Amino acid sequence: MDYVYGPGRSHLFVPGPSNIPEQVIRAMNRNNENHRTPAIPALTKALLDDVKKIFKTTSGIPFLIPSTGTGAWESALTNTLSPGDQIVSFLMGQFSLLWIEQQKKLNFKVDVVESEWGQDADLDALESKLASDKSHTIKAICIVHNETATGVTNDLPKLRKILDYYKHPALVIVDAVSSIGALDFRMDEWGIDVAVTSSQKALSLPTGMGIVCASPKAIEASKHATSLRSYFDWNGYLKCYNLGTYWPYTPSIQLLYGLRATLDLIFEEGLENVISRHKRLAKATRLAVEAWGLKNCCQNKESYSDSVTAVVVPTNIDSGEIVNRAWKKYNLSLGVGLNKVAGKVFRIGHLGNINELQLLGCLAGVEMVLRDVGYPIKFGSGVAAASAYLHNTIPLIPSRI
Amino acid sequence: MDYVYGPGRSHLFVPGPSNIPEQVIRAMNRNNENHRTPAIPALTKALLDDVKKIFKTTSGIPFLIPSTGTGAWESALTNTLSPGDQIVSFLMGQFSLLWIEQQKKLNFKVDVVESEWGQDADLDALESKLASDKSHTIKAICIVHNETATGVTNDLPKLRKILDYYKHPALVIVDAVSSIGALDFRMDEWGIDVAVTSSQKALSLPTGMGIVCASPKAIEASKHATSLRSYFDWNGYLKCYNLGTYWPYTPSIQLLYGLRATLDLIFEEGLENVISRHKRLAKATRLAVEAWGLKNCCQNKESYSDSVTAVVVPTNIDSGEIVNRAWKKYNLSLGVGLNKVAGKVFRIGHLGNINELQLLGCLAGVEMVLRDVGYPIKFGSGVAAASAYLHNTIPLIPSRI
Amino acid sequence: MDYVYGPGRSHLFVPGPSNIPEQVIRAMNRNNENHRTPAIPALTKALLDDVKKIFKTTSGIPFLIPSTGTGAWESALTNTLSPGDQIVSFLMGQFSLLWIEQQKKLNFKVDVVESEWGQDADLDALESKLASDKSHTIKAICIVHNETATGVTNDLPKLRKILDYYKHPALVIVDAVSSIGALDFRMDEWGIDVAVTSSQKALSLPTGMGIVCASPKAIEASKHATSLRSYFDWNGYLKCYNLGTYWPYTPSIQLLYGLRATLDLIFEEGLENVISRHKRLAKATRLAVEAWGLKNCCQNKESYSDSVTAVVVPTNIDSGEIVNRAWKKYNLSLGVGLNKVAGKVFRIGHLGNINELQLLGCLAGVEMVLRDVGYPIKFGSGVAAASAYLHNTIPLIPSRI
Amino acid sequence: MDYVYGPGRSHLFVPGPSNIPEQVIRAMNRNNENHRTPAIPALTKALLDDVKKIFKTTSGIPFLIPSTGTGAWESALTNTLSPGDQIVSFLMGQFSLLWIEQQKKLNFKVDVVESEWGQDADLDALESKLASDKSHTIKAICIVHNETATGVTNDLPKLRKILDYYKHPALVIVDAVSSIGALDFRMDEWGIDVAVTSSQKALSLPTGMGIVCASPKAIEASKHATSLRSYFDWNGYLKCYNLGTYWPYTPSIQLLYGLRATLDLIFEEGLENVISRHKRLAKATRLAVEAWGLKNCCQNKESYSDSVTAVVVPTNIDSGEIVNRAWKKYNLSLGVGLNKVAGKVFRIGHLGNINELQLLGCLAGVEMVLRDVGYPIKFGSGVAAASAYLHNTIPLIPSRI
Repeated sequence: MDYVYGPGRSHLFVPGPSNIPEQVIRAMNRNNENHRTPAIPALTKALLDDVKKIFKTTSGIPFLIPSTGTGAWESALTNTLSPGDQIVSFLMGQFSLLWIEQQKKLNFKVDVVESEWGQDADLDALESKLASDKSHTIKAICIVHNETATGVTNDLPKLRKILDYYKHPALVIVDAVSSIGALDFRMDEWGIDVAVTSSQKALSLPTGMGIVCASPKAIEASKHATSLRSYFDWNGYLKCYNLGTYWPYTPSIQLLYGLRATLDLIFEEGLENVISRHKRLAKATRLAVEAWGLKNCCQNKESYSDSVTAVVVPTNIDSGEIVNRAWKKYNLSLGVGLNKVAGKVFRIGHLGNINELQLLGCLAGVEMVLRDVGYPIKFGSGVAAASAYLHNTIPLIPSRI
Repeated sequence: MDYVYGPGRSHLFVPGPSNIPEQVIRAMNRNNENHRTPAIPALTKALLDDVKKIFKTTSGIPFLIPSTGTGAWESALTNTLSPGDQIVSFLMGQFSLLWIEQQKKLNFKVDVVESEWGQDADLDALESKLASDKSHTIKAICIVHNETATGVTNDLPKLRKILDYYKHPALVIVDAVSSIGALDFRMDEWGIDVAVTSSQKALSLPTGMGIVCASPKAIEASKHATSLRSYFDWNGYLKCYNLGTYWPYTPSIQLLYGLRATLDLIFEEGLENVISRHKRLAKATRLAVEAWGLKNCCQNKESYSDSVTAVVVPTNIDSGEIVNRAWKKYNLSLGVGLNKVAGKVFRIGHLGNINELQLLGCLAGVEMVLRDVGYPIKFGSGVAAASAYLHNTIPLIPSRI
Repeated sequence: MDYVYGPGRSHLFVPGPSNIPEQVIRAMNRNNENHRTPAIPALTKALLDDVKKIFKTTSGIPFLIPSTGTGAWESALTNTLSPGDQIVSFLMGQFSLLWIEQQKKLNFKVDVVESEWGQDADLDALESKLASDKSHTIKAICIVHNETATGVTNDLPKLRKILDYYKHPALVIVDAVSSIGALDFRMDEWGIDVAVTSSQKALSLPTGMGIVCASPKAIEASKHATSLRSYFDWNGYLKCYNLGTYWPYTPSIQLLYGLRATLDLIFEEGLENVISRHKRLAKATRLAVEAWGLKNCCQNKESYSDSVTAVVVPTNIDSGEIVNRAWKKYNLSLGVGLNKVAGKVFRIGHLGNINELQLLGCLAGVEMVLRDVGYPIKFGSGVAAASAYLHNTIPLIPSRI
Repeated sequence: MDYVYGPGRSHLFVPGPSNIPEQVIRAMNRNNENHRTPAIPALTKALLDDVKKIFKTTSGIPFLIPSTGTGAWESALTNTLSPGDQIVSFLMGQFSLLWIEQQKKLNFKVDVVESEWGQDADLDALESKLASDKSHTIKAICIVHNETATGVTNDLPKLRKILDYYKHPALVIVDAVSSIGALDFRMDEWGIDVAVTSSQKALSLPTGMGIVCASPKAIEASKHATSLRSYFDWNGYLKCYNLGTYWPYTPSIQLLYGLRATLDLIFEEGLENVISRHKRLAKATRLAVEAWGLKNCCQNKESYSDSVTAVVVPTNIDSGEIVNRAWKKYNLSLGVGLNKVAGKVFRIGHLGNINELQLLGCLAGVEMVLRDVGYPIKFGSGVAAASAYLHNTIPLIPSRI
């Protein structure tokens, strides 16, 4: 039996899983199919071609892996690195932390560059490391594009520049889980070697598909990487790509059709328009936070995330209580503060297939819940700030003009 | 192929069709079934029993008619009245007008009691008519419980009192289309003889099921009513009720399962809680309208509708432009002004399976569109007024406490 | 809660409601929409154009009526005829009988031409009536194209020839409920004035949409017909067609999208291929029946229905028991014998979106249930006869060649 | 856009992915939810309890892993074994082969006991190995319960007896992918240490959930196993089980609700009845194969699989052509012959939520396709043999008695 939710729609504003559009829910509403007919390889081939567009790569090779983002991380690492390889990895929040734990567990030598939570990756520290690494012992740089726990977006073009300056051949492996499909991400232009995303974030799908895209350099590295890998081995995929069967094991038929539908929606809206919409919703959220007199967990303006905003609450308030109450009273799901920022921040996810009035409903809900927990908010203040901005920037819906 | 809508959810705030909850969409997601197996009669029997609860009747007999509300109107009239019968009918907006046109078309003598649009039914005029109708030539009183075009709810208990005072035997036939499931409606207590509702309103279903409920007195009248009727004839149903087959023709299997699901949700929330929620959302809407400095089309405070609010716009603004722009820019569907109030009012439907944050998103959208059309609204003003009220009155979601 | 069915798919082989293809179920899996936006009229306009193709008419005007076939019948009659009008109507089974009852109820003078159940309409009797009707008192001929109760298809081209021969101006009103989309039906070529079908038959949709198509002559007649009508009045539709709003009352959004999807499937397969498929499945069914040593209820080979086969059972067997047992043991829904043929025939519906292996599964099920009720059937005999024929006639699926 | 399939239902008879019942498709037809609310852990907890029932274990601990069966294999191995550990593994078909390849890739020393494809696992060979392994260097026995490529079911109770006889402590790790939910599987009684299944097989779900169940002994082993593992590490799950959050990363909300629905259906039918149904369908299939004069790839009667039958074709026929043609002409998906038996066998999957008439439709289709490829089959022969058996053994559907 179904769990009973409150009346009306759930307001899902965690930074993933995100809201699935009706068109995608519809596309997935189907029986299984035999994956060994010609239909599924044909579908897959077109998907692989189209997935490259959202990574902005022409030379990369994508893998659609039946797993979560955590599995996709593992695929990125084990296919390109060997046990004992030295990597530089930036710690700046819960998800970079979890990834670093995985890196250690997989027996890489991880040189952790830590920032305060709320700061972006310390690229200066990287610079000095590269400067002194004449022998190129550093095999890879691992970085999250967008730290979902703190709402901080790292500067990947700058990272590229540093590497280029030092002519350092380290692979650049990027967690773009809460980034691709929401933020501007340019795999080829920025020289990313492996980028990883996941279906339930900006792609607005159910969980279950990790997407890894590998540059030719990463593919080359995979031929020599000695990390043990089986399920996540790219080689199994590459063999099937060559055979035209495309799948080393049974894919989820439903997720393939869902991916088709969500890519169709993205291309129909226009990828650049999708990115603009994320910028617009994020800016509106930040204006509301400012109007409420609260602070963004992200400390550098240039690093504000356009997919999630982590809001710092006054010290006398437990952010967990905000999240809890939002769900219990307003049918609103907000992101909790994780680990170091537990109790200190709550997060508003504004990624995926959502629009302005959904966000304003969420912001109005946050206002009420803030009042509930004793914060002296002025009702309507955040909504007003967001509306004033949105009102001027929302374009007409093209199909309705 | 699907029409392309803007990104994110559509914000559907017309006073019907209303938003279908996910649980109900799910329940209807099915193949056809043979309606002549024992399963469908068993399902129907339980539905008929449960439908009576939302009409608050124990003695009434419901008919689930594959039609819209217009067809249900016709069923109510032709089964109880004979051509040439005199009826008193109240004109106070577009839907009462359309019903009166139908009444005339069906050859009843209609004594139209007209009110200004925005006023409620003129029950004083009725009183004088009844006082002078010693011979009981008036066979029926036809009244809308809630005039959807103007957002006015009529006082049915008062109507009953007047009839009782004059001991007048006229049938009371009520259009409760935008009422039942949203407003408090008491068929037995108020002595309603025929009440009519429709699936796509407060029941949050697709269009396609007109629900008519007949009192024993109405059933008795149907035995003598000579209006021609075939499709809408209650007799066909009653025969099948007796046979236990329940259906004189093939019902929509999907709508039956949908009705089951929506009733389950209503009973789970509690019918009185559903009514309270409608009151709460309506009050919040009115507070926003007031904060915006705009007027309710409904002129008597006691008659404010809890399922729809018609908002009067300043004379220099075309309300049609508001509705148009809301759809084109904000993916927000508002109700247009109809007929006499075309261009003068727009309507916010707040009935069916919706919640507070959905409404606040809508109100924020209305604020932006009002600004778009040149009304000097203060952003956040309506949302603030609504939030201040809602914040104090929203109960915790029982299943989450 | 869901009724519990046996494991696996239900085998739905009643002659309506028919099986809904997954693509159509998907298309209908959606929230409500505001029917007053430009999107719904645009959708409707395209549907009306495309519906004409399956009626094979260019000059006819279709009406998509929220009702069952019974309502569509009423619409056909009341819009074209006046009380007291004389009509000739053919009785040859349960559905023609029910229609005649409606005709009488609606106060037309019905000259019933009765055939034995299993025979087709007695067109010779019509001929003599027309020959003697010099004054053209006969206003309409009402005939079912396909009598669903007996599996008999009437010869409409012959009917047209007779009328033409006598230059008789009577309207030809056809129940094509279990015909259009399954059988070859040519509204313009055969001079049909009103044709009626219903969503849950060959169109493979849920119940809830009656489709009526009127010739220019029928439209002209509607201007003078004095039958009372409101809900079913074509005039309401025609006004909205002119206005471009298309709907006099709220349509089912879901059924509109469902109709779009089902028409797309029909056009993709090709209407003539759809008709051929029905012929093929029907022929296979009849070969099985013959192999079983049983008789077709339809007595003239030329009149065998391609949408349903009524099978006569030996006198010592109750066909109701067959239907009952098929459902209880094999999850197979067959059509019961109705009225005069109750207990004597069971019916295999083979219309709508089904294919050969589905039918063979059904035939295998019928064999088992026949054995269950004591008929000495040879297992596999009917399936073999059907397979031998199908094997030679099934085309490759075009998209897979 | 959807791929165009032929008209009617697809007939899916590969041994996975299997047919998803409508109830399960419905349950999965939903938006995402926040997995960090109390609702998802509560749902998960109940699922874990219920999953144990289909493994027939009370002491085992299940893990629901977002992956395919291949990932579940890896989870079973890496959590319990250390690099260099010696294992005995049985090769008897394509899936055992693929698993062995994985075992080697993961650096275990694999002692492969090979059987001819079509034979069951050579347990005699095991016996001699155990007899001589006094020092218990063999750490695990890896065996498929049901080899999907050849339709052979291994004798796990016998395996247990051998181990017990020699008091050998090796872990027993079982691929029960095409077994659990179809065949009788008794984890506790048979002393299985790790059993692995997958959502898209007998559980009739989409692909995407690998289910691993670990005995207390296996859990103990996992504390000392040194194989590198991150994504598949049980420890991550166990920590979350203790915390009551249940998920180390985001699960697929849709698959969780789907699993709930499919388990509900299994328990409602009764697990033993589900197993009996699989036996019945398998026996019917084998009777058909025999009637066709063809051979089962499985060479020992006692080892016939009840979830899939591999049919050997005459040497002059290419089984690939059968599969190809079945799909192109009859919309029927059969399993191809894999690797050593490519071209030599085709496979009929009869597992999951299907019923007798579906199978008979499939068998009738196979007859036609056999004739298409030149095999002199007698139409109806297989269907007759199957029907004669099924007719006597199909029980009434309990809810319909």
